[in-house]
Amino acid sequence: MQVKDCLVSAPGKTILHGEHAVVHGKVALAVSLNLRTYLKLKASSNDKVCINLPNIDTFCCWDLSELQQFVPFINDKKDETQRLDAELVRRLRDFMGVTNGNLDNGSTASLAFLYIYLSVFASGELPGLTITVWSELPTGAGLGSSAAYSVCLAAALLCAAGTIPASLKEWDQTARWCQEDLECINSWAFQGETIIHGNPSGVDNAVGTWGGMLRFLAGKIIPLSRVPLLRILLTNTKVPRSTKALVARVKDKINKFPSIMNPVLESVDAISYTCEKVLTCEPITGEHYSVLEELIDINQHHLNVMGVGHPALDTLCRVTLAKGLHSKLTGAGGGGCGITLLRPETDSSVVQSTVQDLKDCGFDCWETSIGGPGVQQHSPSSVKEEILDILDRY
Amino acid sequence: MQVKDCLVSAPGKTILHGEHAVVHGKVALAVSLNLRTYLKLKASSNDKVCINLPNIDTFCCWDLSELQQFVPFINDKKDETQRLDAELVRRLRDFMGVTNGNLDNGSTASLAFLYIYLSVFASGELPGLTITVWSELPTGAGLGSSAAYSVCLAAALLCAAGTIPASLKEWDQTARWCQEDLECINSWAFQGETIIHGNPSGVDNAVGTWGGMLRFLAGKIIPLSRVPLLRILLTNTKVPRSTKALVARVKDKINKFPSIMNPVLESVDAISYTCEKVLTCEPITGEHYSVLEELIDINQHHLNVMGVGHPALDTLCRVTLAKGLHSKLTGAGGGGCGITLLRPETDSSVVQSTVQDLKDCGFDCWETSIGGPGVQQHSPSSVKEEILDILDRY
Repeated sequence: MQVKDCLVSAPGKTILHGEHAVVHGKVALAVSLNLRTYLKLKASSNDKVCINLPNIDTFCCWDLSELQQFVPFINDKKDETQRLDAELVRRLRDFMGVTNGNLDNGSTASLAFLYIYLSVFASGELPGLTITVWSELPTGAGLGSSAAYSVCLAAALLCAAGTIPASLKEWDQTARWCQEDLECINSWAFQGETIIHGNPSGVDNAVGTWGGMLRFLAGKIIPLSRVPLLRILLTNTKVPRSTKALVARVKDKINKFPSIMNPVLESVDAISYTCEKVLTCEPITGEHYSVLEELIDINQHHLNVMGVGHPALDTLCRVTLAKGLHSKLTGAGGGGCGITLLRPETDSSVVQSTVQDLKDCGFDCWETSIGGPGVQQHSPSSVKEEILDILDRY
Repeated sequence: MQVKDCLVSAPGKTILHGEHAVVHGKVALAVSLNLRTYLKLKASSNDKVCINLPNIDTFCCWDLSELQQFVPFINDKKDETQRLDAELVRRLRDFMGVTNGNLDNGSTASLAFLYIYLSVFASGELPGLTITVWSELPTGAGLGSSAAYSVCLAAALLCAAGTIPASLKEWDQTARWCQEDLECINSWAFQGETIIHGNPSGVDNAVGTWGGMLRFLAGKIIPLSRVPLLRILLTNTKVPRSTKALVARVKDKINKFPSIMNPVLESVDAISYTCEKVLTCEPITGEHYSVLEELIDINQHHLNVMGVGHPALDTLCRVTLAKGLHSKLTGAGGGGCGITLLRPETDSSVVQSTVQDLKDCGFDCWETSIGGPGVQQHSPSSVKEEILDILDRY
C-alpha cells in the first residue's frame, strides 16, 4: 500500500488567563500560540516505518514485518476513538523496552506514533512511510509541544489512512478540516497525549486542533468563535520549575488563608470572563487593548499573590513595561514562560529593541501571535524555507 | 497666671493594612509610628504667647492684650468639646489674615494652636507661655504629623489649664493619662485636626492619643489592646502624590471592573482581620512573623492591582526583599511612604545595610517601630538630647 505524502502543522498553546485558578473550579482561557509544529509524511517503498524528531534527537525505524505482529490485537476502533487501548500500549512498551521508569521524550513520542499508526492502519495493510517533525516550540515549557506533535500525527496519519480526507485542494496554500474531521483528529491526538502525559486535561490537544481561544471550565472545553489574532512576544525565562510543586503551593496557600485567597480566585475568574467579552467585540479598538493590558497586569499581581511569581518574571514585566508593554506569566509560573501583548500599531523597532533587552536578560524571546488557526494542511510553498529544509533533510 | 512647664510627645501613624479599601467600607488597621512629635510648654512672664515650629519655619508671638479680645466670644466648652466653634475659627482667621486660599502649614498650625489655647483658658485668665514643637516626622507624607502636633497641643494646654492633671509623677520618666483624660485630649486634638485638614477621619488623632493599633471600620475607631511593638523601617520615597487623585483612581477602577475589583477589596479586608488576629496572639512566634510577611506581600500586590503602586515602591520592595525583608506601601501610595517589617532577631548589620541601600536609591529611611505608646508626658531626662537641644533653643 502506497500512501499520499502530506504536510501538516499545529500550533502550540498558551494560557491567556486563569492558570492555577482553573484547578480550583474557575474558568481559564487557553489560546493557540503561533509557534507551530510541522510534520511531513512521505510514502516509502522500502517496507520501513521511520520517524525523525530532530528537535529531541530521536530517529527510529521499524520493519513492517516486525510491526505486523500487533495487528491481530488491534480492534477496529473507528467507532470508539475516545478510549485508549491500554493493552496495545502495554504491548508496544514491551516491544520498545520502555518501562514506566524509562520514559524519555523520544520513547514516549515514538510510542504515541506507533500507537496511532497501528490503530489507524490496522483494518488494512500497513504502509511504509517516513514521518519527520520539526517544531518552533521549546519542549517542556508548558507550551503544548507534545499536543501539537500528537495533533500533527493524528491529522497526517488519519489523512494517509483515508479516515479523513485531505483538506488541501490543488489551489490552496493551507487548508483546514471540517468540524467532524477535527473532532476525529482531536480524539486521536488526545490518545497520543495520554500516552505521553498519563492524564492530560485535553486542553492542549483541543487548542492544537481548533486553534483560536478555548474556554476551559470544570473539565469542559468550549472553543470560542471569532477571536482576533493578537500580536505577542513569548518569552521563556528558562527558569526550570515543577508544575506539580507550584500547583501544590497554591493549594497550600488557599488552605492557609481561605478568606484572603478565595476572593483572589474569584477576581481571576472575572478577569477571564472580562477578557473573553472584550475579545469577542468587533472591532477591537485601542480602548479594548487598554483593558486587555489592565487585565494582564492585574492577573500578574494575582499570580504573585498565589505565590507562583519569580524574580525572572518580575524582570520580564519591568523590562517590557519600560517600553510601555504589559506582560504576565503563562502556565505554571515560578519561572517558565511569559507573554507580552503587542498592539497592532506597536512599532517593529520597539518590538525589536524589547526582544533584544529580553535576550540580554538571558531569556529566549519570540515575536509571534495568539489566536491563530489550529491544525492545517500545507502546500510546501506555504511553509518557511528553513522549516522545509529541515523536513526534507530526512 | 503662671502655668506649669511641661514636656509631651505623641507618635505619628501609619496604615498597616486596609488603606484605600477603608474608603469602600472595609476595615483598616492604623498603628502608631514611633517617630514622635515633641512639645515643650514653658511659662512666660512677659505677657506674651509664642509658638515656635522650627520644622516648618514658623515662629509667632502675640501679646496677651490682643488675644484678650476673643475671650468674650468663647463659650465654656467643657461639656461639648466634640464640636468645633466655627465662629471662633472665623474670628481667628480674620485676626491672622488667613483666608481659605492662603492656608500654608504655618498658618493653619498657628490657627489650631490659638484656637485650643483660647478655648481651654477662656474660663480663667490667659497665661503667658511659649510652646516649641519639634517632630521626627516628615510633614505631608501621610504619617499623621499634624495629628501628632494637635495631640501634643491638646495634652500640654489641657494640662497647663488644669483641665486634666499632669500625668507625670516625680519619679517617672514618662507617664500616660487615664482613659477619660485621653478622651478629652483626643477630642480637642480632633478639633485641631479639623482646623488643619477640614474633614479629618479622626484616625490620626486617635492613633496619636492612644498609640498601639486601631481598627477603623465605617467611621468607627476601635483601639485594640495588647498589640506588640514591631520593629520596622519606614521609607519615604519622596515621590509626591495626591491622595485625592489616588482615591479617585481606585474608585474609577472599581467602577470599571466591579467583578474583578470587589473581590480584591474583600481579600484586603480578610488580610486586616487575619493580621489583627495574629497580632493579638501571645507570644508572637517566628511563624507569626512569616504570616505577617506574607500578608504584607499579598496586600502590596493588591495595592498594585488598585493602581496605587509606583516604580519607587517596587524598588523599595525589591531592595528589601534582597535582604529577606518584606515591604508594602502605607497610606495613599503612588509614591509616598512604605514600611518594611523587621523581625526581632533581624541583625542590626542587615538593618544598617538595608537602610544604606534605600538611601542610595534616594529615599529617606528610618529604623523605628510601630505599636508604641500614644501621647505621653516626659521628664526631660527621658528625651533624646538632640531633641531637648532643639526645644531649649527657643
